[in-house]
Amino acid sequence: MNKRLTFHLIGNVVRMAGALMALPLIVSLIYGGSDAMPILISMAITLAAGFALALIRPRRDFLRAREGFAVVAFSWILVSFFGGLPFYFSGYIPSLVDCFFETVSGFTTTGATIIKDVEALPKGLLFWRSFTHWAGGMGVLVLSLALIPKMGARSIHLMRAESPGPSTDKLVPRVANNAKILYAIYGGLSVLMVIALLCCGLNLYDALVHMFGAAGTGGFGTYGNSIAHWNSAAVDVVVGIFMALFGVNFSLYYFILKRNWRAALGNSELRLYWCILLGATVLIAINIMPRAAQGFYSIADGAKPGGNFFTALRYAFFQVSSIMTTTGYATADFNRWPQFSRVLLVAIMFIGASAGSTGGGIKVIRVQLLMKSMIRDIRRTVHPKSVNTVKLDGHTVDEGILSGVQGFFFAYMFVLFVSTIIVSLDGFSFETNFTAVVATLSNIGPGLGMVGPTGNFAAFSDLSKIVLSMCMLIGRLEVFPILMLVAPSAWRK
Amino acid sequence: MNKRLTFHLIGNVVRMAGALMALPLIVSLIYGGSDAMPILISMAITLAAGFALALIRPRRDFLRAREGFAVVAFSWILVSFFGGLPFYFSGYIPSLVDCFFETVSGFTTTGATIIKDVEALPKGLLFWRSFTHWAGGMGVLVLSLALIPKMGARSIHLMRAESPGPSTDKLVPRVANNAKILYAIYGGLSVLMVIALLCCGLNLYDALVHMFGAAGTGGFGTYGNSIAHWNSAAVDVVVGIFMALFGVNFSLYYFILKRNWRAALGNSELRLYWCILLGATVLIAINIMPRAAQGFYSIADGAKPGGNFFTALRYAFFQVSSIMTTTGYATADFNRWPQFSRVLLVAIMFIGASAGSTGGGIKVIRVQLLMKSMIRDIRRTVHPKSVNTVKLDGHTVDEGILSGVQGFFFAYMFVLFVSTIIVSLDGFSFETNFTAVVATLSNIGPGLGMVGPTGNFAAFSDLSKIVLSMCMLIGRLEVFPILMLVAPSAWRK
Repeated sequence: MNKRLTFHLIGNVVRMAGALMALPLIVSLIYGGSDAMPILISMAITLAAGFALALIRPRRDFLRAREGFAVVAFSWILVSFFGGLPFYFSGYIPSLVDCFFETVSGFTTTGATIIKDVEALPKGLLFWRSFTHWAGGMGVLVLSLALIPKMGARSIHLMRAESPGPSTDKLVPRVANNAKILYAIYGGLSVLMVIALLCCGLNLYDALVHMFGAAGTGGFGTYGNSIAHWNSAAVDVVVGIFMALFGVNFSLYYFILKRNWRAALGNSELRLYWCILLGATVLIAINIMPRAAQGFYSIADGAKPGGNFFTALRYAFFQVSSIMTTTGYATADFNRWPQFSRVLLVAIMFIGASAGSTGGGIKVIRVQLLMKSMIRDIRRTVHPKSVNTVKLDGHTVDEGILSGVQGFFFAYMFVLFVSTIIVSLDGFSFETNFTAVVATLSNIGPGLGMVGPTGNFAAFSDLSKIVLSMCMLIGRLEVFPILMLVAPSAWRK
Repeated sequence: MNKRLTFHLIGNVVRMAGALMALPLIVSLIYGGSDAMPILISMAITLAAGFALALIRPRRDFLRAREGFAVVAFSWILVSFFGGLPFYFSGYIPSLVDCFFETVSGFTTTGATIIKDVEALPKGLLFWRSFTHWAGGMGVLVLSLALIPKMGARSIHLMRAESPGPSTDKLVPRVANNAKILYAIYGGLSVLMVIALLCCGLNLYDALVHMFGAAGTGGFGTYGNSIAHWNSAAVDVVVGIFMALFGVNFSLYYFILKRNWRAALGNSELRLYWCILLGATVLIAINIMPRAAQGFYSIADGAKPGGNFFTALRYAFFQVSSIMTTTGYATADFNRWPQFSRVLLVAIMFIGASAGSTGGGIKVIRVQLLMKSMIRDIRRTVHPKSVNTVKLDGHTVDEGILSGVQGFFFAYMFVLFVSTIIVSLDGFSFETNFTAVVATLSNIGPGLGMVGPTGNFAAFSDLSKIVLSMCMLIGRLEVFPILMLVAPSAWRK
């Protein structure tokens, strides 16, 4: 491990995080909140730490995969630590573990919270809290370009696997250039969403903050009732649709901009993504129809009992879009929905969004490849001697990629089981423990039971909060870069 | 599909099941129960159906893999249907779906029951119910020899993978010869267990019936309190140890008989099996110690509050052995144990017993290979260009086998998720639904919540009972032979 280079690069990232704290500082000054000084102190500490680390000059400039992963993993951890300082110094979150949890949850675009009364926080802090989602989303987009392809021959070259054919190579001449295109798309969609929210009657602050949550597929809001605060079908539809749009592979938007409609709309991951999203929406809408008399357990204070199938569709679509894109906003207390809808939402938590989006989870394309492999295995049972290859968008998928995806799936479930066992030491229900781990590992936010959409993670012990924080990081960084840190071979010269 | 040959072979199996009903008939006549006539009628129907099917003469005698799997799958289904008739005709189980569920549960050595008051049933029926476990166990042993190796090049040649080196080929000159050896070991261990239980003071009937349940790793008993009926440390220890012994790969006993100690005891699956079993026992014993005042929730009527660490160890060992071998007997209501112990037991449900035993679950050797693959993937993250192979007992494991095991794992989890979603239509708790599916898919029997060790599966709808019956079959037949039945290519000429 080239430690000096690793420290140097981590320092650069921490420095950048410190600079970004200028934004919540400005917001705080505009609104005259009590949080200006805590933010300023945190900013100073973060910048100082960042510059100090960046001062370490590498002797050699050679960046191997392991240094790359170590930089990413430690950057995310350190930025979450420093990013949590404003909450600590302001006194709103007195425990450093809680501050870390909340900020990891922000940067990993999870949206799981330990704050019981979010409306008590000043506007600068809430802006920062949501802004971490947006910044984390940008980080994820670069990751999917720069680091995933470095994960070895057998690993998950998702960008390559999913883009139809050789046009990928033309799309990605260099990572830096490609990152600029992705950022432009991300920025463009973000601006569109803010405009749409302003049209729905939100003020600029609310529009920005909730765009941050949706664009990063995070889910932090500024109201106790989440998106249900407005209790407006227009807001539900706008947020629901934009969440779904941010869960699509961003390179498909590039194809659309280039008017390469066939490449964009013919993409099989995109089709499966919409099939699952709309299929689950209809199933849940049918399943919750008998709860019309309870207003489908709408969170909004003013929710009137009653409502027709379209009301059910509205709540179902919003929730499926929110869960599948791993955002985690809520307009209905799906924790009180019938078991079938609840379990379907848990299943969707595992699937997650598309590769190359800001969403988390296992990813639609991996589920697609796993399903195709399974169908191939069934065929092999019938015809043991036949040669079967797995095809995607007309191209044969390399066996190494399939094996990498299968290995990823086991590692994902392994982390899920081990974490659930540790978290269960706290003694909460099986449902709470299991879905708390799924909701953090898939970077969603809310789960079922105690961590449902109207609950929070405050009651967990510090040990569980650290385990769940690690789950967020493991899920966000595609499992192996974090697991790598405990491998002895990573630390040998 | 060579349908005539398939029918013919299924007929032979059904005929044999009919002949086996002579045993409960004799038991019924000895005890003078009301169940002699229902058993006789069922036997006649089963024999008639078997002979009728066997009369279909195949035009060609060529048995391919798909016919083999179809014979196995349909035999298990038909035998479970006919085997359930004695319960139906006697009137003790009025629903045919329930009869099927109970008998599938028997033949697949699961032990999940829909009977609320088992002590109300006459002795002949209870003997038959438990005997299906023992017969099912024999069926599984042959399966692991004859059919699993036919599952194609990339599949799970577990017998080959786990036996240390080239000695396997000498062990298995022909399936038939090998089956005889396995049956002799199975019979020998069964006799030893009956003797041990007689020494503990059980009568011959109880000793036989509970040996059936342990040998087949099934778990049906004849008392409402399961093994806690005797409330005897000696019985607990004898049953606990024999369950653990029946969960070991039977070919290792052959090595021991041949005095090839190194091959038997040096086997890494065996070591991991005992590590997990004893490790989980100690962890659970420590975790339940604070419940000494509640007698560790012992099921036995006469359980006194109090007890030291050895009492905790006794209950923990029995339960871990019972769950890990996928038997399902209980001496304590582990449903009321602390969350950590409960979740640890659920995790062990997934792992299951050793390959080549009568136990179910994913199997220790598969978990071992999945873990080794994961460690390899982590190493590859550190050194992307390095060539890493997975080794087991000193031999390199073929990539095809690894990929087959990973595919098996996904298929297992896929069936788990889909089944949990369907079962949740009944509206029971997430814990009940999830563990009911795991307990049937891994052929254990009891789960948590409503299907805990003092509960049963009676309250589920017919749809759920059929889904859970299919889960038992899918788990028992290593997933793909049942999934194959829905593949169109299996039915093409």
